[in-house]
Amino acid sequence: MEQALQGLKILDMTRVLAGPYCTMVLADLGADVIKIEAPRTGDDSRQFGPYINGESAYFMSINRNKRSMTLDLKNPDAKTIFFELIKEVDVVVENFKPGTMEKLGFGYEVLKEINPKLIYAASSGFGHTGPYSSRPAYDGVVQAMGGIMSITGELGGKPTRVGPSIGDITAGLFTAIGILAAVNHLNATGEGQKVDVAMLDCQVAILENALARYFATGVSPKPAGNKHSSIVPFEPFETSDGEIMIAVGNDNLWKKYCVEIGHDELITDERFVSNPQRTVNYDKLRPILAEIMKSKSTDEWYTNLTKAGIPCGPINNIEMITKDEQVKFRDMIVEVEHKVAGTTHIPGIPIKMSKTQGTINKSAPILGEDTADILKELLNYSDEKLEQLKAKQVF
Amino acid sequence: MEQALQGLKILDMTRVLAGPYCTMVLADLGADVIKIEAPRTGDDSRQFGPYINGESAYFMSINRNKRSMTLDLKNPDAKTIFFELIKEVDVVVENFKPGTMEKLGFGYEVLKEINPKLIYAASSGFGHTGPYSSRPAYDGVVQAMGGIMSITGELGGKPTRVGPSIGDITAGLFTAIGILAAVNHLNATGEGQKVDVAMLDCQVAILENALARYFATGVSPKPAGNKHSSIVPFEPFETSDGEIMIAVGNDNLWKKYCVEIGHDELITDERFVSNPQRTVNYDKLRPILAEIMKSKSTDEWYTNLTKAGIPCGPINNIEMITKDEQVKFRDMIVEVEHKVAGTTHIPGIPIKMSKTQGTINKSAPILGEDTADILKELLNYSDEKLEQLKAKQVF
Repeated sequence: MEQALQGLKILDMTRVLAGPYCTMVLADLGADVIKIEAPRTGDDSRQFGPYINGESAYFMSINRNKRSMTLDLKNPDAKTIFFELIKEVDVVVENFKPGTMEKLGFGYEVLKEINPKLIYAASSGFGHTGPYSSRPAYDGVVQAMGGIMSITGELGGKPTRVGPSIGDITAGLFTAIGILAAVNHLNATGEGQKVDVAMLDCQVAILENALARYFATGVSPKPAGNKHSSIVPFEPFETSDGEIMIAVGNDNLWKKYCVEIGHDELITDERFVSNPQRTVNYDKLRPILAEIMKSKSTDEWYTNLTKAGIPCGPINNIEMITKDEQVKFRDMIVEVEHKVAGTTHIPGIPIKMSKTQGTINKSAPILGEDTADILKELLNYSDEKLEQLKAKQVF
Repeated sequence: MEQALQGLKILDMTRVLAGPYCTMVLADLGADVIKIEAPRTGDDSRQFGPYINGESAYFMSINRNKRSMTLDLKNPDAKTIFFELIKEVDVVVENFKPGTMEKLGFGYEVLKEINPKLIYAASSGFGHTGPYSSRPAYDGVVQAMGGIMSITGELGGKPTRVGPSIGDITAGLFTAIGILAAVNHLNATGEGQKVDVAMLDCQVAILENALARYFATGVSPKPAGNKHSSIVPFEPFETSDGEIMIAVGNDNLWKKYCVEIGHDELITDERFVSNPQRTVNYDKLRPILAEIMKSKSTDEWYTNLTKAGIPCGPINNIEMITKDEQVKFRDMIVEVEHKVAGTTHIPGIPIKMSKTQGTINKSAPILGEDTADILKELLNYSDEKLEQLKAKQVF
């Protein structure tokens, strides 16, 4: 089947998470992603545990569908190859600390002279402009500075880091969007350009109602635990064997919920008749519901409330997710054969397209496994030339 | 300045968050987003507080750059208008519960007959296929079922909801990527298609190393607090007046850090010489550093450590973010004039493009303010026809 980004050639200089996540999303949709790695060591995340038969499970989870080519970028012959490749690709992506590409001689000003149609996309901690630009950043620092920690955590508790590296991942997603928008402009006008995405900027962009609330009231929101700020009941309750998340989003759902939990009398109880009333009388309602919800297991509540149309769900741990019927049906956990690691499991593709569905054609590459193929295919190098370059440790 | 998505016409049937976030990102890049709303009430989120001069700050924060058109979609004349508009646009986006568009007579199978080039994008809780497809979902339920809660929270504590509605926002971002990929395919082949993005799928897609760790070890990760699982020191420390996040990512940074905190003796302390040693001896190192870090203020540490090249940062609350030098420099908080609310502050555009930078041209629309303009511009309706339709309460 044809794929949506078929024909789009991407030179991928990224490592660790934000950049590789961006290029994974594009590779999943059919782009040809050529990952440039340092000989012998490769992407830093190849050293991140845990390992399966010596291969990093972390690296394998975000580098499927890509090809790997090694190049010692400090070697003059490698630089020549890099410039030749720049002429052949549509996009180059990097997530170095700003200034690193310039030091290598590969800044956007240089590359655009070689290929004026080039889209140069950079993802960095603080962006390529501004007073913090040259600073290094890690996800933890950006989550701290970007405010998401200040509104995540237990009610009355301390600011809490979001489990996944959401600072990296959202930057990866916004960079992918920037690249595709730039491709649209390139197709329309033949013009390339630079796309500059900062992790900190992306954190500000996802603060959602916290920013709106601050500007309307002048008060900075704090961690609010698992309770919704203005809808009741909309939070987890303990059951006889665990917890269940309940989201009674409106008064109609409230009536159905009361019937389903066998307490019709709550429907007419004046303290709880409308959402504003339930919010005002939260401290009275919460213990009543807590008592009721303890009477059945999570599974029983989940089955019964779902049948009644009440939005609810278990608080799944990772194992439970892998066994979930919907997750399985939607191919969101995929089995892939890896040459060294054997059968591995990685997340599927969350964008489902009726005509150009992305596929996972290959597991993450072994370091440099595609070097020769790429040099033959894109630059028409002969076997002899490849031998010479190899002897000079260019790759 | 030209914009990257200039000329892309989007009919936006979305409401609340996931869908409107997606169309905001596309409008920011230059797409013409025509928001269809119910007469009198409009997008549900117009009723979400807090309010500024009676206008929802929540709604205004995610609907800038869009035009608003009202249509009573149960009215037969409105249906006719809707079908005429479908012929004129490139994309339709909706985030109803699956089945709702079909009930209105606007399912993809119907619309693609009218416009075979149409891209139909749907964002929903569980997706348009699979056993849970018809269930309603809210962000809280999806965060619970998708596993992010199970790995967020204090060490040894309970699963914790992420502050912003990350279930909605990531679905909005993946939907935007799906639409742009489909636009690329449309430009190449003239073919439209359906894009189906589920909030639950997106949660699985952003679990990052939690999924890799589970599959490598068979153990589901738990909330780990604010500490990095394998790098030390990489967590917040209390200062004399608050907290600071420190990210000493490698042994070289460790040496610089020890010098900067005035404790060179730690560099040669065998218990702490390498990251593996520091990880093993975490319980001995943590109290030593905690004592040292209490001796200065957050500002002092932030200034000194940053000068020394140590990744670190304050745990900003929302107010602090709005005053941050880099956030200001990067235009990530923007002042916009709103006809009713006056001067408002909303997040900026995190995708910076050298040739086609997006701009915030207009604040969120008043309900239906562009109805007449759109009908004249896209369908060439006369003033007389508009008067007749208005009399029939079509919009």
